[in-house]
Amino acid sequence: MTSPRATLVQVARHAGVSLASTSRALHGTGASPAMVERVRAAAAELGYRPHETGRSLRMRRTFQVAFAVADIGNPVYVEMLTAIHAVLSPHGYRVVVMSTGDTVASTVDLVRSLEGGFVDGMIISPLRVDDAFVAAVEEAAVPVVVIGRSLAAHGIDSVSTDSAGGIAQAVDHLLAVGRRRIGFLNGPLDTTPGEARQRGFDAATRAAAFTAGGTEVADDFTVTAGLAAAHRLLDRAHDARTPLDAVVAANDLLAIGAIRAAGERGLSVPGDLAVTGMDDTDIGRVYQPSLTSVSLGSGRRGHLAAELVLGLVDDGEERGRYVTVGPELIVRESSTPTPAPRKEDA
Amino acid sequence: MTSPRATLVQVARHAGVSLASTSRALHGTGASPAMVERVRAAAAELGYRPHETGRSLRMRRTFQVAFAVADIGNPVYVEMLTAIHAVLSPHGYRVVVMSTGDTVASTVDLVRSLEGGFVDGMIISPLRVDDAFVAAVEEAAVPVVVIGRSLAAHGIDSVSTDSAGGIAQAVDHLLAVGRRRIGFLNGPLDTTPGEARQRGFDAATRAAAFTAGGTEVADDFTVTAGLAAAHRLLDRAHDARTPLDAVVAANDLLAIGAIRAAGERGLSVPGDLAVTGMDDTDIGRVYQPSLTSVSLGSGRRGHLAAELVLGLVDDGEERGRYVTVGPELIVRESSTPTPAPRKEDA
Repeated sequence: MTSPRATLVQVARHAGVSLASTSRALHGTGASPAMVERVRAAAAELGYRPHETGRSLRMRRTFQVAFAVADIGNPVYVEMLTAIHAVLSPHGYRVVVMSTGDTVASTVDLVRSLEGGFVDGMIISPLRVDDAFVAAVEEAAVPVVVIGRSLAAHGIDSVSTDSAGGIAQAVDHLLAVGRRRIGFLNGPLDTTPGEARQRGFDAATRAAAFTAGGTEVADDFTVTAGLAAAHRLLDRAHDARTPLDAVVAANDLLAIGAIRAAGERGLSVPGDLAVTGMDDTDIGRVYQPSLTSVSLGSGRRGHLAAELVLGLVDDGEERGRYVTVGPELIVRESSTPTPAPRKEDA
Repeated sequence: MTSPRATLVQVARHAGVSLASTSRALHGTGASPAMVERVRAAAAELGYRPHETGRSLRMRRTFQVAFAVADIGNPVYVEMLTAIHAVLSPHGYRVVVMSTGDTVASTVDLVRSLEGGFVDGMIISPLRVDDAFVAAVEEAAVPVVVIGRSLAAHGIDSVSTDSAGGIAQAVDHLLAVGRRRIGFLNGPLDTTPGEARQRGFDAATRAAAFTAGGTEVADDFTVTAGLAAAHRLLDRAHDARTPLDAVVAANDLLAIGAIRAAGERGLSVPGDLAVTGMDDTDIGRVYQPSLTSVSLGSGRRGHLAAELVLGLVDDGEERGRYVTVGPELIVRESSTPTPAPRKEDA
């Protein structure tokens, strides 16, 4: 059984292993001796000549994809990483975690370091996007997929979500359950999420018939910063004799800070104060009260970014595709009345 | 300025870059053209001859270290990963995340795959340790550091903690704050953590003068499984007319399940029921009530494992070192009475 026109795909099928494993066994590094033997046997049976396909490989393949974020411990990025690993691993790709650092300059340096050829592609979620970053990605040595906002106009593959629309969903929900004095607890405005979420709240304020209780900006997207900023927000509304009945927070950690602040002030959640978060994290899911949150599909975005990078790296698809993941409000206890628990004798 | 005896370290200092970058530029792959130029210029100025040191390199270096765990989304592993990345990155090493899979067989396969030469070393935290795993690590193609239990007797570098001792600390604390009917909420007993923590609770039961409220085993180390198992534990004690006043849980997620179960039964925490967890996760820290938890030093263990692997890979240190991280009880609201909040007019 030989064919002068056997392809790498046929060899992979015949050997019963992935395309990446096949290519690695014939052209690259990192295949086990058993795998090399199995693939070479299949190639020999099919009369496959490696250098025919080998020519199409522009450079030595690493079968690695980098995933670069500012903080690899952030739950949103952990969800992305888990999804990216789940997509890439069965295709024979390893995931290299990297830190972008906190600045645009360090992020640009990281993208430029791709010329070292240590990965076949990169998925990056930068804290901020500016011209220097876009230019570095345009000139990058290997395909780069950006998780953040659409860069299709620059011919860059990108995955985004609509966090501004997500904030509007939270406001609409609070209005629907009868809340009328809604404050906004945001994180730093000079970040991509802070800027977009503020835009969403301001638009919702203009569109809907409710009294906006103003915005307070926390120093960071953390519980501690959220706790302090929530006290400021509630103090201000209290002093103005227009106390809030709801707080929309820009992420789950800020929302938990708001719930803590409410508790410290003797306010019940959701009775006195309804609270919503964003990102739909594990922490929010298991919190008591469980947190109403807008999912921005972190895992889904990671999954789609991994599929985009696979298309670029494995199948040579054209650059510049763009996909967006719609926000989804998940209503839990923190914004809806709950039945009272039964009391048993302890 | 030339020296016939220039070393790689001197070249690195002269070029003002890390040792790993220098070695990579001269011998390996993955250095940028600018870095290669800079290092070669430094080498030329010092009269460094690459192959003198090159001989000491047994094989082609990748400047990558694998970190392999069963579940890369688990908060404990995320803390380890963050610490490992922080140690290795400044030394020029990239971290490749890998999944061990759930079985001993898949874990053994992963260790065997190291012969592919895609990393210079591996840090692995297996769910279970058996003879096949130990044999695979003993024969591994590159240095492997095991996070789990001491394998020094096998000449394997390992980092452990004393989770059994940590459970004893939790029991001692509960006795000290006046609790006397203490139940144990464990995860599956056929796992390394489940087995060790059960051993710890059983020993504490024998050592101390309190009425052990028995053990209930959850199907998994999760909030949902903990909730169901906590109800079984509390039901049994209630039916026996020896209701519990405290629950020691084998991790933070199970502890949160226990707090939820208490809430569903109208029991206050810590008033009616004190609860302790283990692992000192972010979730437990921000939970309401904040969770008393035994830290097993996940970040510290990751840090030490990274230092061990660096010693093996960079400095050729002898294998078989063993370090242990002591457990540390962190007392928070879930096991101690808290002051009542002040009430303000909403």
